[in-house]
Amino acid sequence: MTVKIALLGFGTVASGVPYLLKENKIKIEQAAKSEIEIAKVLVKDDEEKNRLLADGHEYNFVTSIDEILTDTDVEIVVELMGRIEPAKTFITRALEAGKHVVTANKDLLAVHGADLLAIAQKHQVALYYEAAVAGGIPILRTLANSFTSDKITRMLGVLNGTSNFMMTKMVEEGWSYQAALAKAQELGYAESDPTNDVDGIDAAYKAVILSQFGFGMTINFEDVVHRGIRDVTTDDVVLAQELGYVIKLVASIEETASGLAAEVSPTFLPKHHPLASVNGVMNAVFVESIGIGESMFYGPGAGQKPTATSVVADLIRISRRLNDKTVGKSFNEFSRPAQLAKAEDIKSDYYFSIQTPDQPGQILRLAEIFNAQQISFKQILQSQANGQTARIVIVTHAMNKKQLDNVSKDLKAVADFEIHNILRVLGE
Amino acid sequence: MTVKIALLGFGTVASGVPYLLKENKIKIEQAAKSEIEIAKVLVKDDEEKNRLLADGHEYNFVTSIDEILTDTDVEIVVELMGRIEPAKTFITRALEAGKHVVTANKDLLAVHGADLLAIAQKHQVALYYEAAVAGGIPILRTLANSFTSDKITRMLGVLNGTSNFMMTKMVEEGWSYQAALAKAQELGYAESDPTNDVDGIDAAYKAVILSQFGFGMTINFEDVVHRGIRDVTTDDVVLAQELGYVIKLVASIEETASGLAAEVSPTFLPKHHPLASVNGVMNAVFVESIGIGESMFYGPGAGQKPTATSVVADLIRISRRLNDKTVGKSFNEFSRPAQLAKAEDIKSDYYFSIQTPDQPGQILRLAEIFNAQQISFKQILQSQANGQTARIVIVTHAMNKKQLDNVSKDLKAVADFEIHNILRVLGE
Repeated sequence: MTVKIALLGFGTVASGVPYLLKENKIKIEQAAKSEIEIAKVLVKDDEEKNRLLADGHEYNFVTSIDEILTDTDVEIVVELMGRIEPAKTFITRALEAGKHVVTANKDLLAVHGADLLAIAQKHQVALYYEAAVAGGIPILRTLANSFTSDKITRMLGVLNGTSNFMMTKMVEEGWSYQAALAKAQELGYAESDPTNDVDGIDAAYKAVILSQFGFGMTINFEDVVHRGIRDVTTDDVVLAQELGYVIKLVASIEETASGLAAEVSPTFLPKHHPLASVNGVMNAVFVESIGIGESMFYGPGAGQKPTATSVVADLIRISRRLNDKTVGKSFNEFSRPAQLAKAEDIKSDYYFSIQTPDQPGQILRLAEIFNAQQISFKQILQSQANGQTARIVIVTHAMNKKQLDNVSKDLKAVADFEIHNILRVLGE
Repeated sequence: MTVKIALLGFGTVASGVPYLLKENKIKIEQAAKSEIEIAKVLVKDDEEKNRLLADGHEYNFVTSIDEILTDTDVEIVVELMGRIEPAKTFITRALEAGKHVVTANKDLLAVHGADLLAIAQKHQVALYYEAAVAGGIPILRTLANSFTSDKITRMLGVLNGTSNFMMTKMVEEGWSYQAALAKAQELGYAESDPTNDVDGIDAAYKAVILSQFGFGMTINFEDVVHRGIRDVTTDDVVLAQELGYVIKLVASIEETASGLAAEVSPTFLPKHHPLASVNGVMNAVFVESIGIGESMFYGPGAGQKPTATSVVADLIRISRRLNDKTVGKSFNEFSRPAQLAKAEDIKSDYYFSIQTPDQPGQILRLAEIFNAQQISFKQILQSQANGQTARIVIVTHAMNKKQLDNVSKDLKAVADFEIHNILRVLGE
C-alpha cells in the first residue's frame, strides 16, 4: 500500500522529510504499514519551482494549493510554511477537503489551534503536530500516550533554543546580552528581529500547547504571562552563580488549587536541577507528577532533521491509523474545562536585586518592607558598595503574586531604593 | 464499559496500581474509554490473604491462579510477582487463556521474552511491559511510537538505580564501594545479595529489551557483555575526576558495520555529558540517532508509584485497543534479524591505570607497548610515585576489542607492571 502526501513549502525542515523517508525506508514502511510517497510539493511560484528543479529536486512541484486539495490521491498534507497566513487558510481547506494534516506550526496552533482541531474533528480527520513543541523531542506524543495514567502537577520547560543559547553564553562565558544576541544572529539561531525568541513569545506559544497535553486545558496565548531575557544583566547572571543558581528562560505551567498558572520568565534554577544543565540550543521539558514523580525529556528544539523526525513520526502514525481504520482521533484526547489560577495561589520564590544608599541600616529598611507583606528571606547578599550606593540581593521564600505586586510597589515607593531586577526562583 | 483486571501479587508495586486508579480516575477513564476494575488479586496463601484483609485491603483475594484463568470476565492479567517462576508459567497460561498481560518483569522478559511474545502473537493477545525498563520513564513506548521515523545508532543508559546510587556516593562524597553498598542496603535499594545490581546483570537484562525496541534485534542475555561496579576503586573515581570524567555504570548498545554491540560496564563519562548528571537512584536513556541527533529520557528507575504509572499506562493502552478492536498488536513491532558485531568493529576509548616501578623510562616502555598495537594516547597522568612504584594513568583514543585484548595481554606479560584497572571511556 502507498500513502500519498503533499508538502506545503520546501524550506529547510521540509527537505528533511525526504531525507528520512529515504535513509530509513525499511523501518518507516514497517511501522507505517505503507510506503509514504511525496506526491506533490507546493512552492510559491514558478521561479522557486524552476530553482528547485535546477537544484536537482525531482518532485512534482505545484504553485496552486488547489492542485493538492482536488487531488483525491493525496491523503495527508504536511504544512511546513510557518507563520499564520496562508498556512491557516491552507490547513483549514485541507481539513475540509477530508485530508489529514501534519504541521510544525506552533504560532498557528497556539493562537488558532482550538478552531482547527474543531474543524478536524468535524471532518473526522487527523491534525498532528509533534514537531510544534521542542522540535525533536517526542514530548507531545509521550504526554498523550504515556502520561495517561499519571496526573501532572507542574511542567517546567526550556523551550526556546535561541534564548537558551544566549543565556548559556551569558552564564558560562560571561557574555553580555548584546554579544550573545549578535552571535545567535550570526549563527542563524536568531532572526534579525529576535522579538519572538528573546521576549518569550515563542516559549509562550509552546506553553499553550503543553497546557493542552499536560493538563487537558485549552488556554489562550494571552493567559500565559510572558517575559523574555532582554533585561537579564550580566550582574544578575553573576549574582545567581554566587547564590548557587543558573538563569534560564523557563516556561512554567502549574496546576494550583484554583486553576492553571502558565508563565514564561527568566528563572533562577538551582545548579543541581536537571534543567540547569540543558545548554546551548537544546530544549527540555521537566515534568512533576503524582505517579512518576520527576521526569525529563531532553533533545534538540529545532533544526532540519529533528523537526523532520517528528513530522515523519506523525505521518507514520496517521498511516498506521488509516491501516487500522481508526484515523480521525484527536492527537490529544485529554480535555477538561480550562480554569485559570487566582493570583493568591500562584506562588514562587523570588530574587530581588536592589540598589540602596551605601549607609548603615538598609537591610533593616528592606526587611521591614518585606516583613509587612509577610515575606521571609532565604538568602541575602550585599555587594558592590562604593561609598554612595550598595547592591543588596535577596532571595525570598515563596510568596504569591499579590504579595509580589505589593512588595514591588512598596519598594518602588522608596525614593532612594532602585530595583535593578526581580526574577522567579525555582526552590530546591 | 468496564475492563476487569487481575493482579498477580500484591507487593509494593502492585499496591501502587489501585492508588493511581483512584487518584486519577477521571483522566484514566477518559483515556482508557472504560473503567478499569481490579476484579481479583492472586496472593500466595490464606495467611497472606487474611493479613491483607485485616490491613483493610478490600479486594477479592484468591490463592489459585485457576480462579483467574477460568474467569472469563477478567480480560487483563497484571503480573507483579517478579523472578522467573511461577511468573513464567502464570503468564504463559494467561496468554494461552486469551488474556492480555501486563508485566514489569525484566528478568523474565530478557531471558524468555521471545517465547512469551510468540505465545501472545499466536493467541492474538497483548503482552506489554513498559515498566520493565527504567521503571517510571516511558522509554519503551517512546521508542515504539516516536522513534519509528528515526534510525538509532547508539543508546547509552544509566539503568540500574542501585549501582547509580552507589557510584554517586563514591563520586560526589568519596565513599568506598563497601560503604556505598552498606548504605544502599540500609536504604532498601540493594538486597542482601546485591549481585544482580552491582554486577551489571540487571542492567544487562534491560539492555536486551532496549535492543529490541531501539534496534529491532532480539539478542540473548549472554550476548550482552556485562561487568559491574564491584572493582571500581576510589582511586579510579578520583583519577576520573582529575581527567574530567565521572564514572557510572552504563549500558551501551551500538550498531556497528557488522552488527549490534551491547555492553554494560563502568564507564568514564565526560563531565558535561547529559548522562553525567544523572545521580542517585535516577535512571536515564541517552539516544543517538540520525534524525533527532541526541535526546535523553530521564526519571526514576524503580519505586512503587513510578512503576505502577507505567503498568497503568499499559492497562490504558490495552483497554483503548479493546475499544478500537485493534488489540493484539505487538508492543514493539520493529524487527530485523539479529546480528552481533565483530570484535574489530566494537570501538571505544579506554582508561588504563597501571602500576610501574618508580624509575625513569616507564612512560616510554608503555608507549612502545600501546604503539605496537597502533593505539594512541589522548591523556596521560603520572601520580603517586613513592620511590618504589608509580601510578601511570592513560586515556587512549579509540581502539577495538581485538586491540584491547592484545594490549592487555602485552601489559600483563611485563613482570614489573601491574594493571589496576581498565575501563571504557566515552569520547567527547
